Amino acid sequence: MKNEIQTLMQENDLEALLVMGPAQHNPAMVYFTGLVHVSKADLILRRGAEPVLFHGSMERDEAAQSGLPRRDYEQYPWKELQQEAGGDTTQMMALRYERMLRDCGVTQGRVAIYGQQEIGPQFAILNALQQRMPELTLVGFVNDPILSQAMFRKDETELAHIRHMGQITTSVVGRVADFLSSQHARDGLLLDKQGQPVTIGRVKSLIDLWLAEAGAENPEGTIFAQGRDAGVPHSTGNDAEALRLGQTIVFDIFPCQARGGYFYDFTRTWCLGYAPDEALQLYEQVRHVYETIRSELQLDAPFRSYHERTCELFEAMGHPTLRTHPGTQSGFVHSLGHGLGLRVHERPWSSTTASAGDILAAGTVFTIEPGLYYPERGLGVRLEDTYTVTPDGHFAPLADFPLDLVLPVHG
Amino acid sequence: MKNEIQTLMQENDLEALLVMGPAQHNPAMVYFTGLVHVSKADLILRRGAEPVLFHGSMERDEAAQSGLPRRDYEQYPWKELQQEAGGDTTQMMALRYERMLRDCGVTQGRVAIYGQQEIGPQFAILNALQQRMPELTLVGFVNDPILSQAMFRKDETELAHIRHMGQITTSVVGRVADFLSSQHARDGLLLDKQGQPVTIGRVKSLIDLWLAEAGAENPEGTIFAQGRDAGVPHSTGNDAEALRLGQTIVFDIFPCQARGGYFYDFTRTWCLGYAPDEALQLYEQVRHVYETIRSELQLDAPFRSYHERTCELFEAMGHPTLRTHPGTQSGFVHSLGHGLGLRVHERPWSSTTASAGDILAAGTVFTIEPGLYYPERGLGVRLEDTYTVTPDGHFAPLADFPLDLVLPVHG
Repeated sequence: MKNEIQTLMQENDLEALLVMGPAQHNPAMVYFTGLVHVSKADLILRRGAEPVLFHGSMERDEAAQSGLPRRDYEQYPWKELQQEAGGDTTQMMALRYERMLRDCGVTQGRVAIYGQQEIGPQFAILNALQQRMPELTLVGFVNDPILSQAMFRKDETELAHIRHMGQITTSVVGRVADFLSSQHARDGLLLDKQGQPVTIGRVKSLIDLWLAEAGAENPEGTIFAQGRDAGVPHSTGNDAEALRLGQTIVFDIFPCQARGGYFYDFTRTWCLGYAPDEALQLYEQVRHVYETIRSELQLDAPFRSYHERTCELFEAMGHPTLRTHPGTQSGFVHSLGHGLGLRVHERPWSSTTASAGDILAAGTVFTIEPGLYYPERGLGVRLEDTYTVTPDGHFAPLADFPLDLVLPVHG
Repeated sequence: MKNEIQTLMQENDLEALLVMGPAQHNPAMVYFTGLVHVSKADLILRRGAEPVLFHGSMERDEAAQSGLPRRDYEQYPWKELQQEAGGDTTQMMALRYERMLRDCGVTQGRVAIYGQQEIGPQFAILNALQQRMPELTLVGFVNDPILSQAMFRKDETELAHIRHMGQITTSVVGRVADFLSSQHARDGLLLDKQGQPVTIGRVKSLIDLWLAEAGAENPEGTIFAQGRDAGVPHSTGNDAEALRLGQTIVFDIFPCQARGGYFYDFTRTWCLGYAPDEALQLYEQVRHVYETIRSELQLDAPFRSYHERTCELFEAMGHPTLRTHPGTQSGFVHSLGHGLGLRVHERPWSSTTASAGDILAAGTVFTIEPGLYYPERGLGVRLEDTYTVTPDGHFAPLADFPLDLVLPVHG
């Protein structure tokens, strides 16, 4: 949680954090600022001090909405920078960062870099800054011990945001189910009132529309994959394809608050009208594993132990897994789940390579999503909910929705 | 245009481009791949060769949709990387990039870095990669001479995308105008049929909804700023505020194709019901400047010369500009316009610091957006359209919409 950041900085010998980029669609920045319309920004958090938000003059009102102490870039006049840096834009930017850091009292020690932006220019500027300030050590983290560790457990406000996204997500999924159920089946196809086949593209458009109506955004799109495509976990489905009866449809939806806030992640597998035996069998196996894992979840247990357990359960049913068949594209081909917050994928991780610190701690938010995939048989099944766990070890999804496989349609 | 890239690489002594990150909301990657659902990707373009797309196994179908030669990360088994890198994740990632580059025949020379991602991890990985491969020089560009130069002029396909976004944008603006005009005025407020004040937040929600319906996304939100807020160019407006008659409303909308494709950028200033004299006067001045600039545009002229000309025109009317009053927050306080494409702001630039190469060349796409701002008088006016220019020097907006100030409402 945010209140851990100072301690984490001390433990990891960091003098400051430098967060770059806009206050929208930028997890590290939004964590400090909330969602505000500041399109160009930097934030410096010195150990023992408050974070300072740097922003352009035209966005001063929006920057103020963050409630943070702030400074206008106007305090670093372009002409002055230009003169001192000899007109080289990269050096001018590096010089501005040097001044901003010095103004925050950061003159030596380790400074960690954060922010989502175009990396080419930043790579040039950070290298120039490192040369200007050799007494600093600029560091980036693949396994981030500060912000990712702070973000690991969510506070009540964050949980409320994610819970709200869960309500939006499941209500949109409900609307999709109602829409599909109200169409008509003929010759194995789903037809609308005009007798036209309902396509995957049309369903996806409605999802975008209903998410927007509810105040959410869908930056990465929706997986609505039928038959063979359902057998490839990240296949998003073919927009031009008509919906057919008796096919497994993997419907995976992962929207965020508009302008890039908290995410939700949710999957159901549906068969329209009826489920063929082999689809039903796979579904029952996935559901059995899902419910077994759910019943076995324990506070503070390593997430990866449940991935191992999932592999064990699927293997006992005769399915290949990444453990028994590395690189397999059939059977259980991904990890059990992942943490979720301002990123759709974040700690805790569940894969075999996840760290032992990736436990199901109180306040963590994570998905449970076992699945089975047989693309060559035209089949895929996945069930996914987003969970949290209370300090007394109570695990529950952040939104409820039936797990049913068959979606009835008019004959 | 894309066909310039090889020549630009040669001129700038670049052996390869390394583009990192997803194929959505990532301009440099989308430029090569188009919009496809590949959430983790890299692309290597070696001089004289075709670009190669690297992707995860689960996203193989989506990666194939790019039409590019491709390689699955499975070809770089995690266990092998782990063993060779001694279990250090940063080194493992750097080692994988080393192998990917070597497999593309890139073993020496300058390699330019691109892509929109979280910069912290990439900064660590690129530094490790640089140490592993000292015969390479990894470079980032603030003023990018390769892709930004290629993107500078749009080809017919790109122009069609932007034109389509222009149609969507102006049709949504038309729906907003119709919606506002169909409400009722009472006591200086705009009321809906239930007699409730129409708020800025409600208008913005409708905009998001209608954009989603049309297949667009609004990742940075809309500026719908009234009165004093209209006087601050990037103030987005206060969602809770009720719409009032006779106030200047700056309505600036800049959506993109869903999942992060081409943008459009458009602004109108409206007064509901009537325009007070001082609003009308500012509007007429801005419109005069807008039309003067438009009539003076010439093929291949430096964009910044029109910014200078705009300052000159506004100064002659007695308004402060950034030329006469550096750092001013009243008068004409921003630059005349900017290029637009897969980024909402890109070359050509129009500010006084823009390069002489930022000309209005055939196929460039750019905004013309003069404005006047007097926050302390509760006034702001901006008019903006997105233009392109043909090889024979014909300038025209990519979508048409009336410039009118007053939006009639029922009495």
